[in-house]
Amino acid sequence: MRIDLNSDLGESFGAWGMGDDEAIVQVVSSANVACGFHAGDPSTIRATCAAAAAAGVGVGAHVAYRDLVGFGRRFMDVAPRELIDDVVYQVGALAALAGAVGATVGHVKPHGALYNAITHHTAQARAVVTAVREVDPDLPLLAQPGTVVADEARRAGLRVVHEAFADRAYTPQGRLAPRSEPGAVLHDPDAVASRAVRIATEGTVVATDGAVVDLPVESICVHGDGPGAVEAARAVRRALDAAGVRVAGFR
Amino acid sequence: MRIDLNSDLGESFGAWGMGDDEAIVQVVSSANVACGFHAGDPSTIRATCAAAAAAGVGVGAHVAYRDLVGFGRRFMDVAPRELIDDVVYQVGALAALAGAVGATVGHVKPHGALYNAITHHTAQARAVVTAVREVDPDLPLLAQPGTVVADEARRAGLRVVHEAFADRAYTPQGRLAPRSEPGAVLHDPDAVASRAVRIATEGTVVATDGAVVDLPVESICVHGDGPGAVEAARAVRRALDAAGVRVAGFR
Amino acid sequence: MRIDLNSDLGESFGAWGMGDDEAIVQVVSSANVACGFHAGDPSTIRATCAAAAAAGVGVGAHVAYRDLVGFGRRFMDVAPRELIDDVVYQVGALAALAGAVGATVGHVKPHGALYNAITHHTAQARAVVTAVREVDPDLPLLAQPGTVVADEARRAGLRVVHEAFADRAYTPQGRLAPRSEPGAVLHDPDAVASRAVRIATEGTVVATDGAVVDLPVESICVHGDGPGAVEAARAVRRALDAAGVRVAGFR
Amino acid sequence: MRIDLNSDLGESFGAWGMGDDEAIVQVVSSANVACGFHAGDPSTIRATCAAAAAAGVGVGAHVAYRDLVGFGRRFMDVAPRELIDDVVYQVGALAALAGAVGATVGHVKPHGALYNAITHHTAQARAVVTAVREVDPDLPLLAQPGTVVADEARRAGLRVVHEAFADRAYTPQGRLAPRSEPGAVLHDPDAVASRAVRIATEGTVVATDGAVVDLPVESICVHGDGPGAVEAARAVRRALDAAGVRVAGFR
Repeated sequence: MRIDLNSDLGESFGAWGMGDDEAIVQVVSSANVACGFHAGDPSTIRATCAAAAAAGVGVGAHVAYRDLVGFGRRFMDVAPRELIDDVVYQVGALAALAGAVGATVGHVKPHGALYNAITHHTAQARAVVTAVREVDPDLPLLAQPGTVVADEARRAGLRVVHEAFADRAYTPQGRLAPRSEPGAVLHDPDAVASRAVRIATEGTVVATDGAVVDLPVESICVHGDGPGAVEAARAVRRALDAAGVRVAGFR
Repeated sequence: MRIDLNSDLGESFGAWGMGDDEAIVQVVSSANVACGFHAGDPSTIRATCAAAAAAGVGVGAHVAYRDLVGFGRRFMDVAPRELIDDVVYQVGALAALAGAVGATVGHVKPHGALYNAITHHTAQARAVVTAVREVDPDLPLLAQPGTVVADEARRAGLRVVHEAFADRAYTPQGRLAPRSEPGAVLHDPDAVASRAVRIATEGTVVATDGAVVDLPVESICVHGDGPGAVEAARAVRRALDAAGVRVAGFR
Repeated sequence: MRIDLNSDLGESFGAWGMGDDEAIVQVVSSANVACGFHAGDPSTIRATCAAAAAAGVGVGAHVAYRDLVGFGRRFMDVAPRELIDDVVYQVGALAALAGAVGATVGHVKPHGALYNAITHHTAQARAVVTAVREVDPDLPLLAQPGTVVADEARRAGLRVVHEAFADRAYTPQGRLAPRSEPGAVLHDPDAVASRAVRIATEGTVVATDGAVVDLPVESICVHGDGPGAVEAARAVRRALDAAGVRVAGFR
Repeated sequence: MRIDLNSDLGESFGAWGMGDDEAIVQVVSSANVACGFHAGDPSTIRATCAAAAAAGVGVGAHVAYRDLVGFGRRFMDVAPRELIDDVVYQVGALAALAGAVGATVGHVKPHGALYNAITHHTAQARAVVTAVREVDPDLPLLAQPGTVVADEARRAGLRVVHEAFADRAYTPQGRLAPRSEPGAVLHDPDAVASRAVRIATEGTVVATDGAVVDLPVESICVHGDGPGAVEAARAVRRALDAAGVRVAGFR
């Protein structure tokens, strides 16, 4: 039994800090590193890559809309042609800084509003897929199962690494319950950890109606910012270790 | 006899255009492509790389201070550590977009105020040199002879490609005459072209006091923006062709 | 008979120019001045306000999404609360620079994708209306008749100045024909000028089906960028002058 | 006896927080509010003005170089003409948001590298002074005694409010000891508080050589970020209160 744990790192910017990267990098096996469009100045990128490499954690490109003040969390109606180029630019910038500390970019995971948009926005999903293929057709793309971007990526010959969220409620159809619904986000570290173990060992999740739903994923996403996030991430890791699940990158 | 002609390209940004890249790319053998910090959005970068590749023109990274509104023309007291990372970031971003159209980054040339600063600012010069070495120790750096950055680059084992400006007056010491002096910038296309031929064929320039000064360079910089720039660039190219000088990249 | 002519000015940014402001400021009676979010650095803003003041042209705030690289032409899902503050910020910045040259901000006209969004996006329309009221409840808002923002503004007690586009086709319902339809944009300066005169003198337009449609507006928008734009704007002005229509601000 | 306490507030940006504004606003009488160029998005600006107004704290414009990633801490060789416009833009933007919550801008204090530059850089100092006068010749400017900007402001007829730093060592000439010298920054809250009381009650400071030096100021600057900053600020306030010094704005 084996699972990847991924988290967003390197989301500081200049004088502003974000999250507890030092703690999270000890817990996960893959780091989604901000590339400068929503967060992550060049020096933060380098330091994050170095910390990931030192901890044996894989580096991935956390590509985003160009929206610093909005932290990439606002949908932008970017033309596909421009989005392709924005993504290639970001991955390339990260790759050079990763290379400077002996690391390599091993995956791509879109961030925030872009991540959400491409679950259903076909043109933007295809743009992201095209960009990844242009940079390196062997680069895996992290995505939720059943999303438009996962389908497009597979169709284009990209490797798709499916991921789940241990701290989110799932519908009986295996989709994330909207954040607007009560109970959509789990805050109890033990509950989150239990879900993570179930996902890793059985490939299932208990949905909002109590049904057991298949959720076959290679990676689980944990968070490093927000109150209690680090505690939950550590609880997930401890529970996985205790359950005999090996936490390791998907490469 | 052979010389490289280099020019700054890809300095548009979003809806804003700059220079006549289509004309210049037909004249030069090396393009210094803006990397997004002073100019050059990702789609402009891609289009510029594609145009350069189609014309058989080499692509280089025109790295700059992060200052869009100032077009990279204002000195910024950037710490060396941050400058290294800024330069690596820019070269990497360009490299990925160049790669997407089958081109490769073949040189680095700092832009504007950074270019000027590192003629004498040792800490920033070393930062640029370190960045280039980190990205690829075989990447040549364009610089003026006798500058701090040229010395630092050579000392660090980088290949330095010396360049001259055919439209600028030179002091008897072989340095650029300050722009504030009358006659510092030549505007007559024929005069500029004659200087270019002399530089390419004899490796000399007539200085402000009439003396003939050695100026052994591998490249001559021409401009694509400003009134008369394209005409001057074309005149340079025609004169070099007529003089039997082969215009070709320095790679 | 009297009509206002408005146009977007001050859309340069740093080293990058845009449009022919010198020509347009001689033609129009109201200038929509970019406020720095999609275009318009502070020095451009000042110069534009000074030119408008010298020509007796009214200054308005051309507020936009914060998107320089996209020139404010891409929809952004900005939260209403943030949009209010973004608009207040922009109007205030412009007001101070206008004041420095003896001008005052006399209207607000949203730009690009924001202008389009608030024709139908109620939450963003209300945000813009709220922002204008917060800055100055006597500040008129330029809008197309029949749009959500026009309704919201009127309901909130703002003065709405309706505007038409002389170079655009209108549907029988008096709405702009989508740009995707053939003939949606008129390029012949004479045709554009004739429409402007009809709008100014009769308050009507000939729609795409040949029907004469009411279009009661106080202002007509003309453009200063793009091929032929200045010629069309001058033709509009000449035709209005010849028809005895007084071109004057709506204040 | 009476003194103003000023501090930098509103230095968050989008998703990134900075400092403990809630605590500091209870301690000081004047807030220097970031205006968007080094920090401070529009919604942060509004919230900061509202919090200041609620606490009876004066609002001032903390104007800066346009350098988000560098937090305005890096010298930029901005041309005076552009710097004037940058400052007017920032003050105007802040004024509008302050007005939206019933506050007014009552002073200007340059930030970071700009603050440092204009202690000696005459052209930039004059630019700042010109900008303040253009916005409102009655707006006081916070500055250290004996600096170029203080002289230029006074000569131009601006009111200069002198300020001191209770946590910094002073030379026998009454200037700040360079940060590079040991002991240049005081970290002990009690020591900082004692200096503040001495400054407020006697107008003197004990310099690095033990001499008592005149330091006649109307305001003392305290910090809200960094380890121990809030504790030191509170200690200063408590000590002033205990000494019978009234902490109140300088308006």
